[in-house]
Amino acid sequence: VIRARVHHVAYVVPDIDAALPEFRDRLGMTIEIRETMADQGVEAVMLRAGDAWVELIRPLDPEGAIARFLATRGQGLHHVAYAVDDIAAALAELRDAGLELIDPEPRIGLGGHLVAFVHPRSATGALTELVQDHG
Amino acid sequence: VIRARVHHVAYVVPDIDAALPEFRDRLGMTIEIRETMADQGVEAVMLRAGDAWVELIRPLDPEGAIARFLATRGQGLHHVAYAVDDIAAALAELRDAGLELIDPEPRIGLGGHLVAFVHPRSATGALTELVQDHG
Repeated sequence: VIRARVHHVAYVVPDIDAALPEFRDRLGMTIEIRETMADQGVEAVMLRAGDAWVELIRPLDPEGAIARFLATRGQGLHHVAYAVDDIAAALAELRDAGLELIDPEPRIGLGGHLVAFVHPRSATGALTELVQDHG
Repeated sequence: VIRARVHHVAYVVPDIDAALPEFRDRLGMTIEIRETMADQGVEAVMLRAGDAWVELIRPLDPEGAIARFLATRGQGLHHVAYAVDDIAAALAELRDAGLELIDPEPRIGLGGHLVAFVHPRSATGALTELVQDHG
């Protein structure tokens, strides 16, 4: 049985340093990770916001999905991530239930966590990430 | 100083009962509140998801902002809410910093909390809610 917990909300922004003052200085969140993920063509920051996090993502690859999102929709909410205890079991359960998975197998995401994305078509219209935060 | 904590993520859906199985049965969240807010023209559900919540919102008023959102963008992520200790102080601080507030004063939201919305133009492109969860 999956027990999904809100893990983070992610925003796509054109400029992380321009977005940071709102979240860090005005809203009082704390930067925990800042990382360039060259293989995914993004730079990302994770800020602690209570028991969950806010992620800011900037495209580095002008041809990538994040750059396309920014060009067509502008900066704003990109996805929601839910923590689960066992991501492989959760993915198997969702696949068996007929959900469309973008990542059929977990991969390494920001901060070294195992992550996988579910297609918005199978997730109430919102790009949805699972994150394994234990083990 | 504001210490904002992720409180909930809200989805607009055309049919709450059709959306509930994903969140309740598949992802293992627990319904805490189901309420019709006639003055706002919506029905809403809050599901507990770890230390934060997921809100599902259905328009009751076909002329309202939520119905327009659904008609133009389809179901999906609508806003993110951050908990603060003192919403009146937080609103004053954000107003003084030049942010565009949709609610210049707190009002009563789902579950009886004091809430106020910040315009996406002043919040990294995302409709943003503040919720006072203490006091």
